[in-house]
Amino acid sequence: MAKNPTPVRLGMVGGGSGAFIGAVHRMAARLDGRFELVAGALSSTPERSVASGAELGLRRAYGTWEEMLQAESTRDPAERIEAVSIVTPNHMHYPVALAFVEAGLNVICDKPMTVDSNQARALEAAVAASGVVFGVTYNYTGYPLVKEARRLVASGALGELRKVVIEYHQGWLATRLEEDGNKQAGWRADPALAGTGGAIGDIGSHAENLAATVTGLHVEELCADLTPVVPGRRLDDDANVLLRFTGGVKGVLVASQVAIGAENDLRLTVNGSRGSLHWRQEDPNRLVVHLLNAPTQVLTRAGGPYLGAAAAAATRIPSGHPEGFIEAFAEVYRNVAEAIRLRERSANAGGMGSDDASPSDAGLSSAVPDYPSVNDGARGVAFIEAAVASQAGGSVWVKVGRGA
Amino acid sequence: MAKNPTPVRLGMVGGGSGAFIGAVHRMAARLDGRFELVAGALSSTPERSVASGAELGLRRAYGTWEEMLQAESTRDPAERIEAVSIVTPNHMHYPVALAFVEAGLNVICDKPMTVDSNQARALEAAVAASGVVFGVTYNYTGYPLVKEARRLVASGALGELRKVVIEYHQGWLATRLEEDGNKQAGWRADPALAGTGGAIGDIGSHAENLAATVTGLHVEELCADLTPVVPGRRLDDDANVLLRFTGGVKGVLVASQVAIGAENDLRLTVNGSRGSLHWRQEDPNRLVVHLLNAPTQVLTRAGGPYLGAAAAAATRIPSGHPEGFIEAFAEVYRNVAEAIRLRERSANAGGMGSDDASPSDAGLSSAVPDYPSVNDGARGVAFIEAAVASQAGGSVWVKVGRGA
Amino acid sequence: MAKNPTPVRLGMVGGGSGAFIGAVHRMAARLDGRFELVAGALSSTPERSVASGAELGLRRAYGTWEEMLQAESTRDPAERIEAVSIVTPNHMHYPVALAFVEAGLNVICDKPMTVDSNQARALEAAVAASGVVFGVTYNYTGYPLVKEARRLVASGALGELRKVVIEYHQGWLATRLEEDGNKQAGWRADPALAGTGGAIGDIGSHAENLAATVTGLHVEELCADLTPVVPGRRLDDDANVLLRFTGGVKGVLVASQVAIGAENDLRLTVNGSRGSLHWRQEDPNRLVVHLLNAPTQVLTRAGGPYLGAAAAAATRIPSGHPEGFIEAFAEVYRNVAEAIRLRERSANAGGMGSDDASPSDAGLSSAVPDYPSVNDGARGVAFIEAAVASQAGGSVWVKVGRGA
Amino acid sequence: MAKNPTPVRLGMVGGGSGAFIGAVHRMAARLDGRFELVAGALSSTPERSVASGAELGLRRAYGTWEEMLQAESTRDPAERIEAVSIVTPNHMHYPVALAFVEAGLNVICDKPMTVDSNQARALEAAVAASGVVFGVTYNYTGYPLVKEARRLVASGALGELRKVVIEYHQGWLATRLEEDGNKQAGWRADPALAGTGGAIGDIGSHAENLAATVTGLHVEELCADLTPVVPGRRLDDDANVLLRFTGGVKGVLVASQVAIGAENDLRLTVNGSRGSLHWRQEDPNRLVVHLLNAPTQVLTRAGGPYLGAAAAAATRIPSGHPEGFIEAFAEVYRNVAEAIRLRERSANAGGMGSDDASPSDAGLSSAVPDYPSVNDGARGVAFIEAAVASQAGGSVWVKVGRGA
Repeated sequence: MAKNPTPVRLGMVGGGSGAFIGAVHRMAARLDGRFELVAGALSSTPERSVASGAELGLRRAYGTWEEMLQAESTRDPAERIEAVSIVTPNHMHYPVALAFVEAGLNVICDKPMTVDSNQARALEAAVAASGVVFGVTYNYTGYPLVKEARRLVASGALGELRKVVIEYHQGWLATRLEEDGNKQAGWRADPALAGTGGAIGDIGSHAENLAATVTGLHVEELCADLTPVVPGRRLDDDANVLLRFTGGVKGVLVASQVAIGAENDLRLTVNGSRGSLHWRQEDPNRLVVHLLNAPTQVLTRAGGPYLGAAAAAATRIPSGHPEGFIEAFAEVYRNVAEAIRLRERSANAGGMGSDDASPSDAGLSSAVPDYPSVNDGARGVAFIEAAVASQAGGSVWVKVGRGA
Repeated sequence: MAKNPTPVRLGMVGGGSGAFIGAVHRMAARLDGRFELVAGALSSTPERSVASGAELGLRRAYGTWEEMLQAESTRDPAERIEAVSIVTPNHMHYPVALAFVEAGLNVICDKPMTVDSNQARALEAAVAASGVVFGVTYNYTGYPLVKEARRLVASGALGELRKVVIEYHQGWLATRLEEDGNKQAGWRADPALAGTGGAIGDIGSHAENLAATVTGLHVEELCADLTPVVPGRRLDDDANVLLRFTGGVKGVLVASQVAIGAENDLRLTVNGSRGSLHWRQEDPNRLVVHLLNAPTQVLTRAGGPYLGAAAAAATRIPSGHPEGFIEAFAEVYRNVAEAIRLRERSANAGGMGSDDASPSDAGLSSAVPDYPSVNDGARGVAFIEAAVASQAGGSVWVKVGRGA
Repeated sequence: MAKNPTPVRLGMVGGGSGAFIGAVHRMAARLDGRFELVAGALSSTPERSVASGAELGLRRAYGTWEEMLQAESTRDPAERIEAVSIVTPNHMHYPVALAFVEAGLNVICDKPMTVDSNQARALEAAVAASGVVFGVTYNYTGYPLVKEARRLVASGALGELRKVVIEYHQGWLATRLEEDGNKQAGWRADPALAGTGGAIGDIGSHAENLAATVTGLHVEELCADLTPVVPGRRLDDDANVLLRFTGGVKGVLVASQVAIGAENDLRLTVNGSRGSLHWRQEDPNRLVVHLLNAPTQVLTRAGGPYLGAAAAAATRIPSGHPEGFIEAFAEVYRNVAEAIRLRERSANAGGMGSDDASPSDAGLSSAVPDYPSVNDGARGVAFIEAAVASQAGGSVWVKVGRGA
Repeated sequence: MAKNPTPVRLGMVGGGSGAFIGAVHRMAARLDGRFELVAGALSSTPERSVASGAELGLRRAYGTWEEMLQAESTRDPAERIEAVSIVTPNHMHYPVALAFVEAGLNVICDKPMTVDSNQARALEAAVAASGVVFGVTYNYTGYPLVKEARRLVASGALGELRKVVIEYHQGWLATRLEEDGNKQAGWRADPALAGTGGAIGDIGSHAENLAATVTGLHVEELCADLTPVVPGRRLDDDANVLLRFTGGVKGVLVASQVAIGAENDLRLTVNGSRGSLHWRQEDPNRLVVHLLNAPTQVLTRAGGPYLGAAAAAATRIPSGHPEGFIEAFAEVYRNVAEAIRLRERSANAGGMGSDDASPSDAGLSSAVPDYPSVNDGARGVAFIEAAVASQAGGSVWVKVGRGA
């Protein structure tokens, strides 16, 4: 990424004032100078949308996303938006994403990608048909040392995989915040907006994606114990799940949003026959690796000649200078921008199939954009659905459906 | 414990040369000067028993435990052993313990206490009948800050309990050590010696006891995924279990003996409606406490006026001077010695029922001996049995039996 | 900072390709959308300056800073740069800064601000005369929990201060990197470019500023043991200094650039009569506080109602979502932008002296821009000078001069 | 140490009720079964001595140490004490030690060994003349990973040494505890009992010994800033010292007893041209090693085939089972016992000079007793003296005297 290419013109749906994640997306888009936010339909009412846009100094503030789609489509190609970020509550991801994909616009969509698998499959099909770049902000996989963990597993350094433990502890929903006017808590507690999963959807899906990205294994079967712990809550705020990955590898997910004192404590442990690794989101600049009969190793970001290309490409500053959440988030954005420009060059050069830039394989090379794809998004939705079905059946074992 | 009372004369069954745990018991017994090891039947053959005894400089080295029981029983009461430590492989705990209890000797027994619940119940009955002091070396509950955690929960500081997470990660069985002549690994891998549980019995039972001791809750139902991960192994070396405690409190146990790099990484997290706590065996001199909307607190052992009496009584030296595994183990021994002397004084004074010194209630006061009882031991065995039954049924939910 | 104000038009001097710190300044300027980089003279030769500018997609790439100053001064006020960032090697800070200040432009200058105190005093005078906003990128004071530490000290929570320990361990200069074409190491090892201090100037000045900012105390006397450890090096790469702060408070600085394995390990400990605090740059989202006879407290960024306004204002995302080096750096930029706009409004409203926005006092309120000032810069230069003089005299005690 | 040899019969001077360190010595002596405490003169008055002895159940409780020396000397050689532990306040170490050494008894002496160098040299001479075993309880060097650190340095793994940082932070003297009847604080604050050094003697001497033991380097010159921080205190409670070791290697000691929240936080960092290491007493079961351009390594005690013989010999239980302060203390005792038995065998075999069992060289082999010697003790006293002299001269550089 030596020369700074022209920034991608970006629109945003959702993320108006008071929305935590909208501001994060904007900082992530801005950090590397690869995007320019030029348009938006930021809230659920036209009035607030326009007001929020003005507040942000947005050049083109629309009242609704339909209006934005319509207006931008007819604008001079040199000015109109090239991509849209969708940062609404979950239930709106699908209609908005589908419309923009079908209009040939590149999409960055928050997670969970849709509220059910039917939507997810439809979106996969639409993306395949249109060939647009579609990234899902499973932002934790943007951390350099997560990419390094993926490389270590793929290299065989840990031997055959044996067990995967994913923890995701939060405490912010330990009280009934949704009754106190907290906007974030509010929509997450409402099945009509959040979907059928509570904690399992909100943080469980991040956990699933992290495990799948690092190990290359998918959850095939699970047994879920989901609980709405706080009295009066309708969706689960605590989720413990026994997992069986590809090839019979065992796993556990321990997640909660009512663990007082926990902030955003996502942890991954991968055990293999020759070694194991541990990574923790709140201490993201260190990766602990144990190899059989050897001293524990602590790898740091950009720490030296031992790091792989993907990790090196995902870091901006020397090790010891902490990179954090925004930087990892920005990594998804940077790779989507790169993919958009690559696709453009390829189109100009006369034709590349979108398959060629498949981000899932791309991860192992720094030369190819590396971001969570529409397929990652669909797998996450299937995972949530299976967990909810397991719970509904009395915490029984259920298979995780894919492409049924 | 101001004045040093006369040491308790101790015999030992098992723990001959090469046995890790025998040496630990001996150091634990010695540390506080409350025991004097005077007799032993240390190995499974008379020759090795006598040789091991000689090596240790033991005054009375017997060939078998039956011989020791016989000989000591007829010895001058001022010289004969007052208590016996049983540190054999699991399958021998029951017959030895029963015989000594029935002979009116106090017993310190390793865990799991027996290989099935029938044995455990029989032992409970025998202890009740004889009135002897019977301690089970669930040694991790001997740590001062575990006692403090128990006090915090009992005090209501964490509010209503919501979720308990217990982790126990080890890696020493990641390869087939039992084929390499490793004595520890050998008997643990053999169902005839270890019982029906592998990791679930060896370390899972410690985890169960720690959780129950700190929370006062018992596991009532569980769904267990037990796996012999290393090819060729007959017993599970990895165990993940969904738990339901008294009152519907949710829990998870994540345990493994094949997690390379993990040494003896036992961790407990207790979440309640007003706070949570975290303790880790490898960092035993710190207890992390989170209270709602307050900064995280880190308590240290003997750290100040804020610690409870039980924790204070269980510590020997100022905070910052690390106490470890042997000290915690010694705490079980010290309390058993205290209980033995108390019972003696009470007997001399003309009669106290053993119930009056019930260690489980005793825990909250420093004045009363505080050690894991025969009932703790029985509950641990029932837990192991339930987990094995769950696995046998296809990782289904099963109730944990008690006193059926 | 509710409404997004118009971005400040920024020029940059230095920071062309290969320069670590130039890229950091650009990300920091971009993150919050408060600056727009429109012009630059990025390298030491006109050819490379123009090439670097083109590479970055800079609108106006000049060959030299003089050329930039000249051209921008005559440009339409609505388009010309409002501020300049100076990110050259140390020896160029003074001439460039002075010229821009005298031209009435706001300045962001890297540290150490100048290579001697005469320059520093001249710059202080020029800033006072022109009334421009002048920030020095002592970026570590931009961390939210550093601001919280400052508030705690100022509040008296730690009692009377007793001792300050500052450590700054790096290892990247453990070998003679400057001989291998490493640009960063190259100029730092050359007294003509770096000034008379090596490690004491490069990282010691950060340490001094951090200590002074948090405690409000200044180093008044010191005894320095500076060593060029790596054979052949002319400037110190290791620095150990005994310190005496205002009021006789004792202190120590332990700094090194040859501590293998250390990355950017800046640590501050402040001890008082009622408590102490600890902060570490590599773990910047936690602040450890000890109060007499109370459990240790760990504060986190945005962690709750207990945090002060300055820390809260300096954080962008919820705690548990790590913020890092770039965010802290951006905090300096954001506050400088705020100060520039405030000054502008005040000027338009008809007159506010620059003294009224003095950032050093401002620190304790979130309402006032909070960034390191030209006076902080000058104090840092005096500190370096005193340490070098102490060493020259045989590691003797010398007073730190100010305004002599 | 396969076969358990006959325990060494031990007497104790000092360490009566209320004395922290006496109880530690007794547990340390007891842990490995290598000593049997049979006699003592435990307090400074005959009445309390006898009472303390009775309380401990001591077989032979004497009123004074002179009485004990006299009585034991005339006792049957098969019963009389073979060694004495001296655990009095500092000022009594010398007269007691000298008398017992001259009587041909082996000695374990607390630190600092004497209150001045004249005494120290006299003791060195007496030990050389009598040939007894003389150990000083610089107990921190008994930790297995300290022995491993020493081995790593000696092996050249860190290259040429460059810098040594020793920190020792305590907070227990942050208030005037000596006025509240605290016995430990009381004598430490009184120059007549403690000697001329406060913190520099009490903890600084431990720090000096740790650094010298691990690096093999001695402090040759120093510049000390010693402060009685707490108003009214006569001896320093805070000590910061610039150090120059053998061969010009630089160092710093940062020590305090008024750092609130610090408990017993002794830390050592050794930097070399090829690597560095870090060890911390409060986390003693881990040793962090950095080698140039390699990932950080964390060694654990007994952690695997990579550990050296001395560390392996000094550990009792598997890694992950924390060993702590008492175990490290016991390591000094165990090695002294071993040396006593070796000397005895050698004497019986017809003559070995005491030089042959010199513990300082012995350290690198597990076969030879490894404990701090009378020479270590003398070097520690010289270090304290030099620091006090530096302070007296206005914190100037002074040479550390040896054997003047």
